[in-house]
Amino acid sequence: MSGSCVFCKIISGEIPSHVVYQDDLTLVFLDNGPLFPGHCLVAPKKHFETLSDLPPNLTEPLFETAKLICRAVEQGLGAAGSFVAINNRISQSVPHLHVHVVPRRPKDGMKGFFWPRRPYRDEAEAVDTRETLIAAIEKIRS
Amino acid sequence: MSGSCVFCKIISGEIPSHVVYQDDLTLVFLDNGPLFPGHCLVAPKKHFETLSDLPPNLTEPLFETAKLICRAVEQGLGAAGSFVAINNRISQSVPHLHVHVVPRRPKDGMKGFFWPRRPYRDEAEAVDTRETLIAAIEKIRS
Repeated sequence: MSGSCVFCKIISGEIPSHVVYQDDLTLVFLDNGPLFPGHCLVAPKKHFETLSDLPPNLTEPLFETAKLICRAVEQGLGAAGSFVAINNRISQSVPHLHVHVVPRRPKDGMKGFFWPRRPYRDEAEAVDTRETLIAAIEKIRS
Repeated sequence: MSGSCVFCKIISGEIPSHVVYQDDLTLVFLDNGPLFPGHCLVAPKKHFETLSDLPPNLTEPLFETAKLICRAVEQGLGAAGSFVAINNRISQSVPHLHVHVVPRRPKDGMKGFFWPRRPYRDEAEAVDTRETLIAAIEKIRS
């Protein structure tokens, strides 16, 4: 637990929230400023800042819970689909890892995250980007 | 494999792509219309339409790969953070589950997904939404 973390306080019960689900390792509660009603936040009970910081033994528990919540918003709220998202550091309002699960419907007004995209200038830029990532992955895994 | 699925064809090598990483169960390649260079798509090699369809034994492999790619874009491309997202059915351009991993930087122009939100009208609406989700979860888990 991180002393000043709002989500740690929600998890401990110090700050009230609308809890939708919990198990030993994860807690799900309503986002109180939802994109649409039923917008849930899925968080590990233990404090980690970003997905990169999540230890391997919590990956399956966290995303099995996220999957359960996708099914719940789809089946329970009659949504046609769902949106799942994590902001790591940039645009992350609370520095305690959380997975947004948002019910989606056709023509619900949500624009997705498909802002103007910039295709790679040329094949060389794509190849260069790929090579850089492959080198980073090798370094991380070594 | 689904015969007409573009991502299945990328996974089989029938359609060329810039592969960044692969293991037995997952493939990572560059989105060719990236939000920012290094925007990757992480997909299970086996065809599933949405996260809800992913079997439990693939949850950890898929998201461990997504986590690796978060680290790779952050460390390899010098990004300050990352954005991870899944569109299930609505806004899903290719009906083969894929996790977007996007490098993020301060003031990169990406607005996040924080479009106008509508807070719950009152406590009753939030409670009602929570109860509906709890009932759906119980049904799914029973």
